[in-house]
Amino acid sequence: MNIILLSGGSGTRLWPLSNDARSKQFLKLLPTNEQDVKESMIQRVVRQLKEAGIDAPLTVATGAGQHDSVTAQLGEEADVVVEPMRRDTFPAICLACEYLSKVKGCPDDEVVVVMPCDPFTEDGYFKAIKRMGTGVTDNAADLIVMGITPTYPSAKYGYILPSHDMTTGGIVRIERFVEKPSVADAEKLIDAGALWNGGVFAFRLGFVREIGRKYVDAATYEETVRKFDQYPKISFDYEVAEKAKSVGMVRFTGTWKDLGTWNTLTDELETKEYGNVVTDGTSENTHVFNELGLPLLCLGTKDLVIAASPDGILVSEKRKSENIKQLAEKLKRRPMYEERRWGTYVVIDFVEFDDGFSALTKRLTLNPGCAISYQRHTHRDEIWTFIDGDGEIVIDGERQAIGRGDTVVIKKGQMHTLRANSLLTFIEVQTGHQLVEEDIERFPYDWE
Amino acid sequence: MNIILLSGGSGTRLWPLSNDARSKQFLKLLPTNEQDVKESMIQRVVRQLKEAGIDAPLTVATGAGQHDSVTAQLGEEADVVVEPMRRDTFPAICLACEYLSKVKGCPDDEVVVVMPCDPFTEDGYFKAIKRMGTGVTDNAADLIVMGITPTYPSAKYGYILPSHDMTTGGIVRIERFVEKPSVADAEKLIDAGALWNGGVFAFRLGFVREIGRKYVDAATYEETVRKFDQYPKISFDYEVAEKAKSVGMVRFTGTWKDLGTWNTLTDELETKEYGNVVTDGTSENTHVFNELGLPLLCLGTKDLVIAASPDGILVSEKRKSENIKQLAEKLKRRPMYEERRWGTYVVIDFVEFDDGFSALTKRLTLNPGCAISYQRHTHRDEIWTFIDGDGEIVIDGERQAIGRGDTVVIKKGQMHTLRANSLLTFIEVQTGHQLVEEDIERFPYDWE
Repeated sequence: MNIILLSGGSGTRLWPLSNDARSKQFLKLLPTNEQDVKESMIQRVVRQLKEAGIDAPLTVATGAGQHDSVTAQLGEEADVVVEPMRRDTFPAICLACEYLSKVKGCPDDEVVVVMPCDPFTEDGYFKAIKRMGTGVTDNAADLIVMGITPTYPSAKYGYILPSHDMTTGGIVRIERFVEKPSVADAEKLIDAGALWNGGVFAFRLGFVREIGRKYVDAATYEETVRKFDQYPKISFDYEVAEKAKSVGMVRFTGTWKDLGTWNTLTDELETKEYGNVVTDGTSENTHVFNELGLPLLCLGTKDLVIAASPDGILVSEKRKSENIKQLAEKLKRRPMYEERRWGTYVVIDFVEFDDGFSALTKRLTLNPGCAISYQRHTHRDEIWTFIDGDGEIVIDGERQAIGRGDTVVIKKGQMHTLRANSLLTFIEVQTGHQLVEEDIERFPYDWE
Repeated sequence: MNIILLSGGSGTRLWPLSNDARSKQFLKLLPTNEQDVKESMIQRVVRQLKEAGIDAPLTVATGAGQHDSVTAQLGEEADVVVEPMRRDTFPAICLACEYLSKVKGCPDDEVVVVMPCDPFTEDGYFKAIKRMGTGVTDNAADLIVMGITPTYPSAKYGYILPSHDMTTGGIVRIERFVEKPSVADAEKLIDAGALWNGGVFAFRLGFVREIGRKYVDAATYEETVRKFDQYPKISFDYEVAEKAKSVGMVRFTGTWKDLGTWNTLTDELETKEYGNVVTDGTSENTHVFNELGLPLLCLGTKDLVIAASPDGILVSEKRKSENIKQLAEKLKRRPMYEERRWGTYVVIDFVEFDDGFSALTKRLTLNPGCAISYQRHTHRDEIWTFIDGDGEIVIDGERQAIGRGDTVVIKKGQMHTLRANSLLTFIEVQTGHQLVEEDIERFPYDWE
């Protein structure tokens, strides 16, 4: 069995802690059994899979913006399939299936389970996944979906109406799918026995590959990537689940939540204060997240969520935090904080002058043994002042040791790279007329 | 007539907008007649003095930490007397009186009015000041104080109990002063006709100088400054007002407030959002002040004051904001933002490593024609990257032009100064083991 975790979302609903590079599934806020140790939603799901005894290889399908975050949080525990552009779940799952087949050499009868990377759920959910895998192995159906016992008539979810038929392996066949109905219709559906569609699918690899080949028929994985835009922009539910002739369902009853808003997320957090937060002890039902270097003082507030990050500051009545999406979209700037495969950076200052000349100042931390790519910029100078650790820098082919107290000026057009021996921290001042991440050309460099 | 404005206060009650260098009287938040133009409390008082037709020379008595703020906000409109250390109002007023006598050459029969620099008050207050000055000129009493008609039995103010005697000039004599009574006693005092003591005093220069000479008898102003610590640490009320034999009072009835807490200050502010603030329009009675470069999003809050500055972030229920003082004292760090005589700086980042080595990053703006002192540091390097404007730099005697895109490294021990031709903005990275403002030696430099 192989598991594909879908990692998507642009993450404005948990602004300012989430941004395009750090969607909600990467926020390390959830409690673990160890005190003071927090984990992210994706880390929690991966841990729960293991604890349920599911040791299938994991493949995360995601966009380029999240590649570094997945690697930083899961390390060797998962392969990463990077979609060349965000389309929808059907293309993403096709690409991951081609990866399993062509890169990992899985046979077409391999059992595959696709699931979201961030449900907040419990052990029974993973037991249901095991039953789904067994069902496919037993050829109970071409596609087995998870039906989740609904707790209220939500208009946000899709519904699955089971039939009264059973397969030989005790898997119930389904009658039909209903996409996001009105609340009134949802009530009727629930009365008729419908369940929520949790977006978990089990099938044999060849079943989905055959459908995908209608759009992209490629000899190599690289060719699939190149032709990725030929897959239709459509969900897996519409393109596969609703059209499939033989669909079974496994039911799961238990805790299952999308911690996608501040209101739902904070309900699950035992810790009320994260980061440098001081209170007078009179606040009620207030969660405070402070990722800035500044102290945050909170006095006598009630029912608030307060979050501060390099992207911005939110102060919101908890129920009103559902309204954040539209406003946060307007506030969207370049990411001010990112977790990358080589370390992290935070933007500490940005100024733009009337004539468009700008200065962007960052503090960067490079992990020991990690290097950035050999690169050059057309429009900006970079001034690096090293403040901790040591490493090596290469400028236009010339290599030298650097460490605390050194300052290096890299002019536009100069080729440069940097490698950390120990944890390396430096302040970077970028200056120029176009300070965008895209102003970069990358070249190979052989450190050995 | 001469006016002495007392400018004190360490400013933690309006944290994080106020700090040791920027006390509440310097916050430019108050509405003016011009739209979008705001003024500070001290600017408002100086404007009101002028509008009331009081054109007496102004002298501000303050501590070294506020010298640059006073100069930046009042410019040529006031002289500044800098107390070598903060003691109390009696020493501060003695020093200012010696300054008027020895530096400005005022005769001992000069009429002087001492007043706080930041009452939030109205025209009648300044009319009362004029009557106090006239009273002293007419020799109605040695000391004339302002009595303010109380609006409630406050335990925070001193009280003045007038007698039934009148001087020839129609100034009422006073019976006694009562320092901060209990609320119950305040009620009784008010019933007996007592008024609030507004801390406004009028007298002839020689009257106070004679009392001061009991402690410090100096030939020059410089000698007075040197012997400043020989003045007792006592208030002017205790040392002068309560002991004076001939004291008169002028009554003022009208608006008179200390906008010293967020709750009282925000009551007077028409504008509810300052800086980069976005709201969904559903907040009630919420004031938001954002001095950071980040956007601040506020959704559905009620009765809050929210303030963000480089010193920290406050989110407080308005009435609870009275409790800020103690907590803000704990949060006190080096000032993260300062208005100086040469321009402004903001600290954008600070990191300290386990071994005590630190990096402090600032963005500085130097006003055209202004220069910093010729200086050197023993414990820190400074790396300057110029991002806008142009000027001249001197390092170890060597002078050169600098401007946008230039980076200069100043090693510990190197003498350096900088002058702006146009508005000059630069990023400074300080690195070293002791990053304190006190690590500085200043030398003369002749730019001509």
